[in-house]
Amino acid sequence: MSDLSKTITRPVLKVQVGKSEWEDDEVVTEYPLTIFLGDEEFATIVCTPADLEEMVIGFLAAEGAIRSYADIKQVTIDEGKGFAYVDTHQKTMLSQSFYSKRRITSCCGKSRQSFYFFSDARTAKPAEDGVTVTPEQCLQLMNVLQASSDIHRKTGGVHNAALCTPDQVLLQYSDIGRHNALDKIYGYCLRENISTADKILTFSGRISSEVLLKAAKIGAGIILSKSAPTDLALQLAEELNITAIGFIRNDRMNVYTNPHRVIVPTA
Amino acid sequence: MSDLSKTITRPVLKVQVGKSEWEDDEVVTEYPLTIFLGDEEFATIVCTPADLEEMVIGFLAAEGAIRSYADIKQVTIDEGKGFAYVDTHQKTMLSQSFYSKRRITSCCGKSRQSFYFFSDARTAKPAEDGVTVTPEQCLQLMNVLQASSDIHRKTGGVHNAALCTPDQVLLQYSDIGRHNALDKIYGYCLRENISTADKILTFSGRISSEVLLKAAKIGAGIILSKSAPTDLALQLAEELNITAIGFIRNDRMNVYTNPHRVIVPTA
Repeated sequence: MSDLSKTITRPVLKVQVGKSEWEDDEVVTEYPLTIFLGDEEFATIVCTPADLEEMVIGFLAAEGAIRSYADIKQVTIDEGKGFAYVDTHQKTMLSQSFYSKRRITSCCGKSRQSFYFFSDARTAKPAEDGVTVTPEQCLQLMNVLQASSDIHRKTGGVHNAALCTPDQVLLQYSDIGRHNALDKIYGYCLRENISTADKILTFSGRISSEVLLKAAKIGAGIILSKSAPTDLALQLAEELNITAIGFIRNDRMNVYTNPHRVIVPTA
Repeated sequence: MSDLSKTITRPVLKVQVGKSEWEDDEVVTEYPLTIFLGDEEFATIVCTPADLEEMVIGFLAAEGAIRSYADIKQVTIDEGKGFAYVDTHQKTMLSQSFYSKRRITSCCGKSRQSFYFFSDARTAKPAEDGVTVTPEQCLQLMNVLQASSDIHRKTGGVHNAALCTPDQVLLQYSDIGRHNALDKIYGYCLRENISTADKILTFSGRISSEVLLKAAKIGAGIILSKSAPTDLALQLAEELNITAIGFIRNDRMNVYTNPHRVIVPTA
């Protein structure tokens, strides 16, 4: 259906000390997509050109421009130009100049605020309890995430994100943009009306505040990563009742927040 | 001078299959800094809280909001609130609502445009020739970049960027945001009036279009990375006369564009 390709092949000079030769090699594609919301240019996202409709829906929901899939009248994507046109049933209250504005309150400023964007404070809600996970399940889910990403193996240039139950990966996306992979999951769940409160997110990249907020918006109670978290992400994870587990490598992992969802042997 | 810390220590539940225990662990800090340009809120950058003035100067130059360091009257940073106030001698022509706008031309749209933001088309200029590098020097510079990053070793959460001659690292910054590390280099070079046309950039992350454009704005002719490039970055590297070298690992590397700056044995 799509003419777009996730990778291209091009000649590369492969160099070792003492020798060099030209070979064809695969390079990951980077594709700018500009989203128009009604008459307004809303944002340009640089992404892997696949699953664009899911990404647009997830991005608009994460930014608070739509509250549900029902708010969308139509999404039209012009792949050649790299434009996505989104019509909503009601004119969105969120203008482009507003959505990236910092949320500055009138408090004394002594304690730092975890939520630094308006749209996040409006759209991120604390996660529900219910789903639990064992260390063995964490290791297994992270192994499946890594093993199933062909494009990552071939080009080394993308992040992977998956929506899982404790026992299996339900949905997986790859993208050169870490947030895009999460937006694609979110958009799919909204469009297909998938419940997320009992699900786990696995992610190949670091757990930054933006990644943590995406997890909160999606509604997952557990986020698994093979990489490191940031302090701000962990502060948000505590406030939003999310279990953040990082450095899932070999047979180890670090549980940073809300360990009540992890079934571990007690020390 | 600064009260801000690049990492914090916090208790973490270390889990292995069959056992678990609480230990103190170091986590990288993520710090939102909101830049006010004159009276306007210009952008919020999430960063590692160090070298903030360099980052602000480099960011504003990269975005085209200033053309040189001389345009700046004063930079005042309120670390507690996370605000940077920038006064310029002349009112900037660039408003917040404009700088992230996509550059849409009236052409037929058949060939994709490499420059997709207005500000990039205005500020990225082709690199000069002059600097050359051998494979041995590439390997050595990448080794130094990796070895000298303490914070990366301790927390696994930051990207490193350095400005180098073929023989040594001159300047190195770490940041949780890949672009921030490059903006810090750019800001330092502008403030201290360092020539960049004969320099090399080394970078721990992928070479995306945004990273390549930062290199072009800084003015370096060669960019070295241990990771993968994207097709759009390579297209820009060709247009901007930048030598992009990726996957510098062990004793190998891939020269993707403008190999005339690399002194290699011919095949």
